[in-house]
Amino acid sequence: MQKFGGSSVADADSIKRVARRIVDTHEAGHEVVVVVSAMGDTTDDLIDLAEQVSPAPAARELDMLLTAGERISMAVLAMAIHDLGAEARSYTGSQAGMITDSAHGAARIVNVTPGRIRAALDDRAIPIVAGFQGVAHDTKDITTLGRGGTDTTAVALAAALEADVCEIYTDVDGVFTADPRIVPRARRLSSVTYEEMLELAAAGAKVLHLRSVEYARRFNLPIHVRSSFSARQGTWVLSDQAQQDHIAQGTAAQGGTPVEQPIISGTVADTNDAKITVVGVPDRPGEAAAIFTALAADSINIDMIVQNVSAESTGRTDVTFTCPQGSAAKALAALENVRSAIGFTNLLFDDDIAKISLVGAGMRSHPGVSATFFSSLAEAGVNVEMISTSEIRISIVTRAGVAGDAVRALHTAFGLDADGEAVVYAGTGR
Amino acid sequence: MQKFGGSSVADADSIKRVARRIVDTHEAGHEVVVVVSAMGDTTDDLIDLAEQVSPAPAARELDMLLTAGERISMAVLAMAIHDLGAEARSYTGSQAGMITDSAHGAARIVNVTPGRIRAALDDRAIPIVAGFQGVAHDTKDITTLGRGGTDTTAVALAAALEADVCEIYTDVDGVFTADPRIVPRARRLSSVTYEEMLELAAAGAKVLHLRSVEYARRFNLPIHVRSSFSARQGTWVLSDQAQQDHIAQGTAAQGGTPVEQPIISGTVADTNDAKITVVGVPDRPGEAAAIFTALAADSINIDMIVQNVSAESTGRTDVTFTCPQGSAAKALAALENVRSAIGFTNLLFDDDIAKISLVGAGMRSHPGVSATFFSSLAEAGVNVEMISTSEIRISIVTRAGVAGDAVRALHTAFGLDADGEAVVYAGTGR
Repeated sequence: MQKFGGSSVADADSIKRVARRIVDTHEAGHEVVVVVSAMGDTTDDLIDLAEQVSPAPAARELDMLLTAGERISMAVLAMAIHDLGAEARSYTGSQAGMITDSAHGAARIVNVTPGRIRAALDDRAIPIVAGFQGVAHDTKDITTLGRGGTDTTAVALAAALEADVCEIYTDVDGVFTADPRIVPRARRLSSVTYEEMLELAAAGAKVLHLRSVEYARRFNLPIHVRSSFSARQGTWVLSDQAQQDHIAQGTAAQGGTPVEQPIISGTVADTNDAKITVVGVPDRPGEAAAIFTALAADSINIDMIVQNVSAESTGRTDVTFTCPQGSAAKALAALENVRSAIGFTNLLFDDDIAKISLVGAGMRSHPGVSATFFSSLAEAGVNVEMISTSEIRISIVTRAGVAGDAVRALHTAFGLDADGEAVVYAGTGR
Repeated sequence: MQKFGGSSVADADSIKRVARRIVDTHEAGHEVVVVVSAMGDTTDDLIDLAEQVSPAPAARELDMLLTAGERISMAVLAMAIHDLGAEARSYTGSQAGMITDSAHGAARIVNVTPGRIRAALDDRAIPIVAGFQGVAHDTKDITTLGRGGTDTTAVALAAALEADVCEIYTDVDGVFTADPRIVPRARRLSSVTYEEMLELAAAGAKVLHLRSVEYARRFNLPIHVRSSFSARQGTWVLSDQAQQDHIAQGTAAQGGTPVEQPIISGTVADTNDAKITVVGVPDRPGEAAAIFTALAADSINIDMIVQNVSAESTGRTDVTFTCPQGSAAKALAALENVRSAIGFTNLLFDDDIAKISLVGAGMRSHPGVSATFFSSLAEAGVNVEMISTSEIRISIVTRAGVAGDAVRALHTAFGLDADGEAVVYAGTGR
């Protein structure tokens, strides 16, 4: 299974290069199934067109429209493979058996029935499958899987076909200990566990979408994130056990020099959240619940929550939470609607924030990580406004302007800096 | 049934205008099914992309690629209809039940199973169907119907749904007695018979594709060719009997003043053919057959054929035929391959020709049409190089440079000139 994002198939030359790589894999004797995104900016262009015609495009029709993008890229990629002497056949999500629910724009995969893909493989043909799309099991309408959908298509199809590995080709060499644009000395990780990758994705790392990692973990499917611009090994995303085997192999390959599992796998800055404070909430049981019930009713994803200690003199408290900037207006409107029912006094809004996260499975067994985390941030002059933690992650909220300083300070403090600078490629995937 | 070509949906504004017209028809109480082409130049742009990647794109994949064009236009049109308060649902050719053979790029419709379209109509929704495309009954691969395919989709679907009429919206007001760009005084025809329309299409008139007319004749389905830029009546394409009824109604509407069936329905100039002469063919039985067998083996469509009288002194003759300019190189190559087998002496090629045709069902019962035809051409100084006729058509080949003079002379000689000038709209359909 090989997945190529939009930047890997941005133009005719990129498509020919990707075709060459696919045919090389095929000629080396592997069965290859390819999942592909729309070319370059195609999806954005189609959304622009829809918005020219309709201020709020009908969801069913927007899905029909957007799926034209993969249709173009997969057909052209199949042509390029034909010209290299191999047989390729393109398939829509529907033809490939990607059966979903009917939640247009954010459909969930309910079944994968890749009969035509298996038949193509039996014919020694290379199936090229449209990512990001499927067909609803009840309405038979075309659906899309939402952001990161092509990764999810690739992983789900790889699982259904019992593939050995799902290779996710992107415009960087793999998963890094930090965004190399912010931390030039970021290092490529040789491997991460599914849990770490989930935390990294939730913390704002863009390289793999959360749902695809969840899917891979459920089916214990190895993911190999690598660059479509080079032949280098990238980053393997594996179960705990498989990662230990991977590390042992690395140790053996280096003549017995131990390659240790790192304590920390990465630091991430995410500046796409906003912070909202509900001021003067009466300090009675159930008031916080009322706030978050109102937000949930409008499908607003809440990330971090902090509640101040109640001031005894007033009997009131402040509740602060973060959510994606894109949902902030909806969140404020939802809260205004319950202002009189809850009786809070004010709403504060702040989108000039950054969430800084440190992720690593080694935190579980290495005490002192928190101490190093907070002291290095303090030394870098980073003020901590909110804190949240999981077993393998610590996140704080601070000012957006110090995000780079914070990440670089943590990267150095935890010994992640590489000797040289990372190589970064331009472009974005979907 | 309403069909809109590429120029009717060239941009966001055109799409909104078309949506308004569809919703008006719907709100007037009609059940409407819409068939739509790709927007403006989309198809050409997709072909360009394919050619950038592959010099001879795989036919299956080219069909997959090109069908993205209608997917975009139909989804956007459905959005625009939604915004006007009606429910629209877009369907691919496959979803609409357009079942074809698997001849990619020129598939023939073998069955139409519009169950989902009927269900949409039962729900009072407006189905928007992608023209030009279908799905192969055996391979389940996506196919396209070739040039004029969207007209054919509309007529075939209208026949399957037993529609009252198939309205073909285009960028002119209907079928004219001549191309108004060549003959400014061309008149719109109120009606033509299927036979006349077939001859006009075969003679090179672009307004309707031949296959769609054949299909309509087979199912006796009235076609109404009209402009998407105005509300005027266009041209009805009907059976002989229906046309007589149509004319009788016109007579009644004009207070009994007889509206006569015209003798001649139109004059057409076609400058897209080439003329090839095979010089010095031995005048023995079977030699002409050998020539045309060789051409048929390469799927070259031959139009007119003339064979000179054999010169007694040499026992050799010349065979001249016309074919589309796009096939001429292939035809010449096919002939070179059989040169020694047939023993002809030379090949002459000429693409500076025009075919001039006069079409009219009245020719059957009105003697003297040929005499007027040839004398008016002679007066206009048009030299006749080849002649072919059917029961309701006379065609000649002459120099391309005199095509306009020839058509104008015929138009005047047969009394077709209108009092005023026709209105012509820019743009082209598919």
